[in-house]
Amino acid sequence: MEKIIMEHGSGGRATNELIKEIFEAQFDNDVLSQMEDAAVVPGDATIAMTTDSFVVTPIEFPGGDIGRLSICGTVNDLCMRGAVPKYITCGFILEEGVEIEILKRIVKSMADTAKEAGVQIVAGDTKVIQGNGGIIINTSGVGFVPKHVDIKAANAEDGDVIIVSGNLGDHHATILSQRMNITNSIKSDNAPLQEMVSKLIEAKIPVHVLRDVTRGGLATVLKELAVASGLKFDILHENLPVDPQVEAFCGLLGLDPLYMGNEGKLVAVVPKDYAVQAIEIIRGCPYGENADMIGTVTTPDDDNEIGSLIMKTDIGGHRFLDILQGEGLPRIC
Amino acid sequence: MEKIIMEHGSGGRATNELIKEIFEAQFDNDVLSQMEDAAVVPGDATIAMTTDSFVVTPIEFPGGDIGRLSICGTVNDLCMRGAVPKYITCGFILEEGVEIEILKRIVKSMADTAKEAGVQIVAGDTKVIQGNGGIIINTSGVGFVPKHVDIKAANAEDGDVIIVSGNLGDHHATILSQRMNITNSIKSDNAPLQEMVSKLIEAKIPVHVLRDVTRGGLATVLKELAVASGLKFDILHENLPVDPQVEAFCGLLGLDPLYMGNEGKLVAVVPKDYAVQAIEIIRGCPYGENADMIGTVTTPDDDNEIGSLIMKTDIGGHRFLDILQGEGLPRIC
Repeated sequence: MEKIIMEHGSGGRATNELIKEIFEAQFDNDVLSQMEDAAVVPGDATIAMTTDSFVVTPIEFPGGDIGRLSICGTVNDLCMRGAVPKYITCGFILEEGVEIEILKRIVKSMADTAKEAGVQIVAGDTKVIQGNGGIIINTSGVGFVPKHVDIKAANAEDGDVIIVSGNLGDHHATILSQRMNITNSIKSDNAPLQEMVSKLIEAKIPVHVLRDVTRGGLATVLKELAVASGLKFDILHENLPVDPQVEAFCGLLGLDPLYMGNEGKLVAVVPKDYAVQAIEIIRGCPYGENADMIGTVTTPDDDNEIGSLIMKTDIGGHRFLDILQGEGLPRIC
Repeated sequence: MEKIIMEHGSGGRATNELIKEIFEAQFDNDVLSQMEDAAVVPGDATIAMTTDSFVVTPIEFPGGDIGRLSICGTVNDLCMRGAVPKYITCGFILEEGVEIEILKRIVKSMADTAKEAGVQIVAGDTKVIQGNGGIIINTSGVGFVPKHVDIKAANAEDGDVIIVSGNLGDHHATILSQRMNITNSIKSDNAPLQEMVSKLIEAKIPVHVLRDVTRGGLATVLKELAVASGLKFDILHENLPVDPQVEAFCGLLGLDPLYMGNEGKLVAVVPKDYAVQAIEIIRGCPYGENADMIGTVTTPDDDNEIGSLIMKTDIGGHRFLDILQGEGLPRIC
């Protein structure tokens, strides 16, 4: 077995071999090894559910790969509702020609990331389609929402502070560098954020909103939050954390880090009185060392400021920001 | 908007339009309309989870389409553990060039089928990839497992009766007919089976095993169940329900309905004393009118019968059946 062939999608012997030798070897646990149509696991009173498909090319890149990304993406989406991520399902869509060695690396990366994120892979499915060695992965997840936790987009309040957990644009700049064959040392930030979120909740920070900064970038995320709350989001350009190398890369290509995707960064909207403590907690967590306060939420002065995102530029001007227009970079995640 | 373009995968304005005009228009409900990273919904003490990706070509076929299939497949996988299906997530992977009219039909079909199956679509994701109008859909699902229900592959017992809920091979024969441009009136059996399963459980039939008959066909499913239980599964060829037109189609092409996939049929393994009642319940449900008893489970007489599936042929011979070898028909589901 060196490459994936259509037979691996038959549901018969070849599929069983693929599952045993590649997936079970890495994902093995009591639930998955039952090999049933569905996994049966303990539940909880309130659950969070999410799904995400990953189509990134290249499938391996500095700092990560499609496997790590597929676990982080779904873990982080659950965290953004304040849930503790628990169970993950994996749907593999493999083009014929996938090299088994590459698939093994991707699957190992998923297993390692799941361990880091504290989640169990409980069910899976594999399909094989015509093509040329591409890999698409869907992950779906279930998390448990602790009592009294209510974190959602519309919850931002007048006076809240906006925090971002680290440097913007790293993942996007990494994928673009790979596609353009540009040599640099920029690495993807793909990372699971469950520790950061659970520590904020454990410390009883009354977090109003959490969002991970993915496709569309920070500006798209914040504009959507502003619209959801009907308030005005003001951010300061000079406070936006961007790695100098990513900044230089963006300058060269005329890109704006505000619209570039990350895969291991979140935005937190918290009451002003808790902002300093929240920043300290985030900075003390893995992947949070560059966290910063970047803005505030206020009641709009007039109607055209309702749901607006306004950035104060370094020279003191103001720029109304909208969500991403146009294509962006396709297949970034 | 007539066709899907790469921009629909940006995460920005075009993505939002696609979601609003196509997905929300059909899937709209209180949970989904929150438009959050994850859905937060009531849970239960014991949950079932499953995932399945659908890559069938053609995406529309007599009796169904990839949308109906994607809901039925995941609903049925949950049912096979005795769970009541509750929540579904949908991951769309769209090749550029998908016609919006076709996508609308598929999405409406999903909404209709979800309604029929009593499940709520609570989260979704859309990615756009290069290609030529293909559609791949991943659905994942959560169901609630009633107390004291324990249905799994290894639970078959000596003396049990094997029931199949209807005609074999309809879905497979439909897809193959479409691919080969053969005109006939064979229709896919793609259907949700939650009513059948819940009625069996409500009637307190102590169901030992449930499996839906999909890729690999009945023989593959029964062989896997035989291996899981360590017992001997005997089936009678003359009792296997096959539609005459499907039988003729198979005869013409040299195909065996035993290895052909369905998408709305299940195998139930129940204690002998409950078999007649179980058959009556199944026959009284939608999609169960052709249900029949097809065999029995017994303790093996010797070691080489452990985990064996043996079919008595119409002329009285015995044939040991294995799981599907080789490719089968790719992209059947």
